[in-house]
Amino acid sequence: MVHFSNSLTKLLAELQKLPGVGEKTALRLAFHLLKSPENANALAESLQDVTSRVRFCSVCFGITEEDPCWLCTAERDDSAICVVEEPQDLLAVERTRAFRGRYHVLQGALSPLNGITPSQLRIAELIKRLEGGGVREVVLATNFTVEGEATALYLARLIKPLGIRVTRLAHGIPLGSDLEYVDAATVQRALEGRSEV
Amino acid sequence: MVHFSNSLTKLLAELQKLPGVGEKTALRLAFHLLKSPENANALAESLQDVTSRVRFCSVCFGITEEDPCWLCTAERDDSAICVVEEPQDLLAVERTRAFRGRYHVLQGALSPLNGITPSQLRIAELIKRLEGGGVREVVLATNFTVEGEATALYLARLIKPLGIRVTRLAHGIPLGSDLEYVDAATVQRALEGRSEV
Repeated sequence: MVHFSNSLTKLLAELQKLPGVGEKTALRLAFHLLKSPENANALAESLQDVTSRVRFCSVCFGITEEDPCWLCTAERDDSAICVVEEPQDLLAVERTRAFRGRYHVLQGALSPLNGITPSQLRIAELIKRLEGGGVREVVLATNFTVEGEATALYLARLIKPLGIRVTRLAHGIPLGSDLEYVDAATVQRALEGRSEV
Repeated sequence: MVHFSNSLTKLLAELQKLPGVGEKTALRLAFHLLKSPENANALAESLQDVTSRVRFCSVCFGITEEDPCWLCTAERDDSAICVVEEPQDLLAVERTRAFRGRYHVLQGALSPLNGITPSQLRIAELIKRLEGGGVREVVLATNFTVEGEATALYLARLIKPLGIRVTRLAHGIPLGSDLEYVDAATVQRALEGRSEV
């Protein structure tokens, strides 16, 4: 049997905790890092640096080094809040440059089967922000998964009574798609949401 | 524009130095690690641990924590040495359990275009081991790439005059292959190397 040194076995186990990294990829990454110890050390320092500096913004719960984060302090439209599940979803929206309001990161989605209930998400904090006044629209940009849809529905019911407009990202055909390869449910939603040319 | 904190930008840059990790994967890994700082710190410690403990075996130039490595000290057949390019290639051979001899890791392959000449590989060390006597066969298990083949040819010319048998891994059809999808050159080599049933 192949016998790895203890420290290498440990590294392989840690690498395999990363998303999309299995046994083979972990070996490939480990050997790459062993070949360039300076890269391995730089990565290690960088990891420690990030975990010690990066925290959650106390306003939007996105990730930041300064609290509140740059998105919460920048000159932006205070009347709209875009609600997303995770910090990376915030990036996906922000990259479009089509939204100039504020953000709120739920840090997850409702999933009773996995024990994720409203109290584990940043929902109370969102409602508190909305009750502060000034917000006219909440854009629900949770994922289009069962959990994300359920979370959007839950939030809509909670927010509408506050007299705030609640919107959801449009369903439709992704840009550049070949219609024949798009699933029927998406085409159906695209038909329902069709617009005048 | 999306604005990352300095420490996160640094981490993304370090992650992108890993093989097969681009911008998107780096983001995915970084956000995963941000969500579980204990994993990030364990990975960082593990990296530092490995780079400080793991070194090259002074006999076979594989990676090890103790010098000489367990493969060089184990009860094995001293009369055969399997020559590979990298430590991970050694694992590929060792996993088969079909070779019970010793190993020698060249730490690369000849590649004049990339400036890799014989003096940058552990070839002098291999010859010294062979001159020590007792070795009857050298199995060349360098990769079947242009560089690997050139290295095998170079080594064969160097070793044969020492009166040592030099062999190379067989070419042929990989197990489980559909013949129609195997490239012609491989089928040709398999035909040339055909054996009695």
